[in-house]
Amino acid sequence: MSILFTNVTALPMAPARTVLRGVYVAVEGTRITHVGPTRPAGEFHRVMDCAGLVMLPGFVNAHTHLPMTLMRGYGGGCDLHTWLNDYIFPAEARLDDRAVAAGTALGLAEMIASGVTCVADMYDHCGAIIEQVLKAGLSANIARGVTLFTDDYSFGSFPGCVETQELTRRWNGFNGGQIRVDACIHGEYTSRPALWRDMGAWARDNGLGMHVHVSETRSEHRECLERWGKTPIQVLNGYGVWDCGRALAAHCVYTTAEDWAIMREKGISCVHNPWSNLKLGSGVAPIPAMAEAGVNVALGTDGMSSHNSADFFSDIKLAAVLHNGVEENPASLSAWDALEMATLNGARALGREDTGAIAPGKTADLILVDFSAPNLIPCHDEAESLVFSAHGCNVAMNMCRGRVIYEKGTFLTLDLEEIRAQVERYALPLVFGAKPSNP
Amino acid sequence: MSILFTNVTALPMAPARTVLRGVYVAVEGTRITHVGPTRPAGEFHRVMDCAGLVMLPGFVNAHTHLPMTLMRGYGGGCDLHTWLNDYIFPAEARLDDRAVAAGTALGLAEMIASGVTCVADMYDHCGAIIEQVLKAGLSANIARGVTLFTDDYSFGSFPGCVETQELTRRWNGFNGGQIRVDACIHGEYTSRPALWRDMGAWARDNGLGMHVHVSETRSEHRECLERWGKTPIQVLNGYGVWDCGRALAAHCVYTTAEDWAIMREKGISCVHNPWSNLKLGSGVAPIPAMAEAGVNVALGTDGMSSHNSADFFSDIKLAAVLHNGVEENPASLSAWDALEMATLNGARALGREDTGAIAPGKTADLILVDFSAPNLIPCHDEAESLVFSAHGCNVAMNMCRGRVIYEKGTFLTLDLEEIRAQVERYALPLVFGAKPSNP
Repeated sequence: MSILFTNVTALPMAPARTVLRGVYVAVEGTRITHVGPTRPAGEFHRVMDCAGLVMLPGFVNAHTHLPMTLMRGYGGGCDLHTWLNDYIFPAEARLDDRAVAAGTALGLAEMIASGVTCVADMYDHCGAIIEQVLKAGLSANIARGVTLFTDDYSFGSFPGCVETQELTRRWNGFNGGQIRVDACIHGEYTSRPALWRDMGAWARDNGLGMHVHVSETRSEHRECLERWGKTPIQVLNGYGVWDCGRALAAHCVYTTAEDWAIMREKGISCVHNPWSNLKLGSGVAPIPAMAEAGVNVALGTDGMSSHNSADFFSDIKLAAVLHNGVEENPASLSAWDALEMATLNGARALGREDTGAIAPGKTADLILVDFSAPNLIPCHDEAESLVFSAHGCNVAMNMCRGRVIYEKGTFLTLDLEEIRAQVERYALPLVFGAKPSNP
Repeated sequence: MSILFTNVTALPMAPARTVLRGVYVAVEGTRITHVGPTRPAGEFHRVMDCAGLVMLPGFVNAHTHLPMTLMRGYGGGCDLHTWLNDYIFPAEARLDDRAVAAGTALGLAEMIASGVTCVADMYDHCGAIIEQVLKAGLSANIARGVTLFTDDYSFGSFPGCVETQELTRRWNGFNGGQIRVDACIHGEYTSRPALWRDMGAWARDNGLGMHVHVSETRSEHRECLERWGKTPIQVLNGYGVWDCGRALAAHCVYTTAEDWAIMREKGISCVHNPWSNLKLGSGVAPIPAMAEAGVNVALGTDGMSSHNSADFFSDIKLAAVLHNGVEENPASLSAWDALEMATLNGARALGREDTGAIAPGKTADLILVDFSAPNLIPCHDEAESLVFSAHGCNVAMNMCRGRVIYEKGTFLTLDLEEIRAQVERYALPLVFGAKPSNP
């Protein structure tokens, strides 16, 4: 399959902070083969005129828990620990593969419709998640979230660890890298040193990335200091957790300048989840200072249970303005900073330097945004408009790995009616006992 | 015209924090005539089945500058004062009535599509704004923003004051209160005591409300303290500005407990503009403490030049989570708190106690939200879903004053193509010299 986009206005992201106008973008198979002012030679299966649209690399949602879409709006108004212990963990204990598949598909649909082409997920029932990701057509880094609360443990027999090993063997690198498996420790506060040591070694020995919740709340961070005399980044560092060379540290709200030095040195990206951090009362991560310190900052939605929607444009907008407001400095972060977090930085965080930009040789993860919508008129500056004025519902097309998976409101790989039926008739009764009160 | 809504799930807002299910809501003329479980007698021009939808009172956008929609994304990344002086004021100097009408209509279209039924606007060229509001069908409080930088002033001849007087005589109370005129002082830092005294008297003598920018930035607030030894709320209080009994104080980011006591006593509502305050680096208003102190808190978008989109659901969501995050308390504000800010409190702030709730006798300002959209599945709690998961594009219907003005993506009172043509062919060349680079 090949497609030629003509008359393209594009923010290629690399070269940085540039707007291309009137260019041609060609895609053959899963790759971008041409970006430039001249029409490339050859025939294309499809030619698409992009007048009135703006092209961007697809967004990388660098921290989520897809199946938690089933828990959207469940247990609202609690602090993180009450919410987890009294609502989320009991509901999660009742999940099965089929319910996880339904919740994953629903979450993916929302993300696709707002321009996400790549996700990093941390959860359980990962086989069911991978199946849905492949069906939908996105790329994903998949991590089995592993907690450890017992001394009765060995890496070779503890369920989460066994599953991580099986996932690694079966899925890591699947289909030209569409699926990657990351090693995972749910968090310092939900596990023990034996796991840290073994999971760190597994990641290092198998060339995996590592995905961990880090310093999300003040109490989590303080209690770690009380337990170990070190921050989560530092204590995990002592067990080799970060030695694999690439990691996703989700949240990082209370990380310190010493942590940032380790993060820069070890290739640990911060995944900023601004809506979740606000909604759960966790706080505001020191993103401008982290970026200034050389930490790669990516962007995530977190699960739909603490957000509670996956319009990625709203995450980009919030990330772009939150720190400016809190720091009383309108230049703390710019529109371009936020766009880079959502694309290039996310790709780097996931070890996917082949995506996140519009350039020949890159994977064809592309979106088109309809600038004829009333909320995008007028346009004084494309980056400002995309970050501050665009909504998910302005996405006119989503192409993942060279395949158009969403166009003008229609999902080309997912069946929304079937997903809704699976959610409402199977998953919700299983997990919550009775169907919630959908109007 | 009469309409009967059947099978309604509604958040009536009064009684407070209740969800009605399976009720009938009847509208005759501009009023709600029935809300209850039994079908009212009589014939209706239209009967609408609301299965799968949720009804809410229309939203009250309690602080905006509609024509500034033309400046969406213009001069991004500056602090408030640079942005005003170097970008906004020069552009505004070139506006005329026709350009204002075009920008107003564009802004109204966006607001209508996301469920706004009532606005409080502060700007210039108010006749052109009123004309567009009436055409669109909303209700509006209109204020001529008055600045005063000269000693060559009398209330009877100074242009902004003359216009306020003319507006009051011609438009205040027009069409059963569809249009109300508010008196206005742009801000303490942009005016002088002679104006404060005269405008306060004009409001008091004519039964108007008062609309003022208050303590938006730290520097504005500090400089007022340096000039007068008092905060803006307090110094204006000394000149009778608040004696009219109802006022909109936009922003209030740096107001104090002493200010809040005056606000409660004088009927001054705080209008919270969270996106604008973040984007311009102004700061985070102490909303939970103000509400706790008994101040009525309403919600506004501010102008589209500092937001830069008018999806009112995003304002509600940000208001609901921002303070929880900053205060590290997930219970600082709840979903219901934010919905009340957007409806009941806004209505009270505008002196429109006849709207903001779904009850017999209230003005029929109603919206329907489509809960079959993927981002609203599942629904564990309607209030949580509306605040945290809904987007403007989920609004299925907007009824203002008993008239359906928007339904399923179609504007019934506005011509979007004509608005776009007026913006792009007339207003932008006039104000910016050349058409911006719309893709």
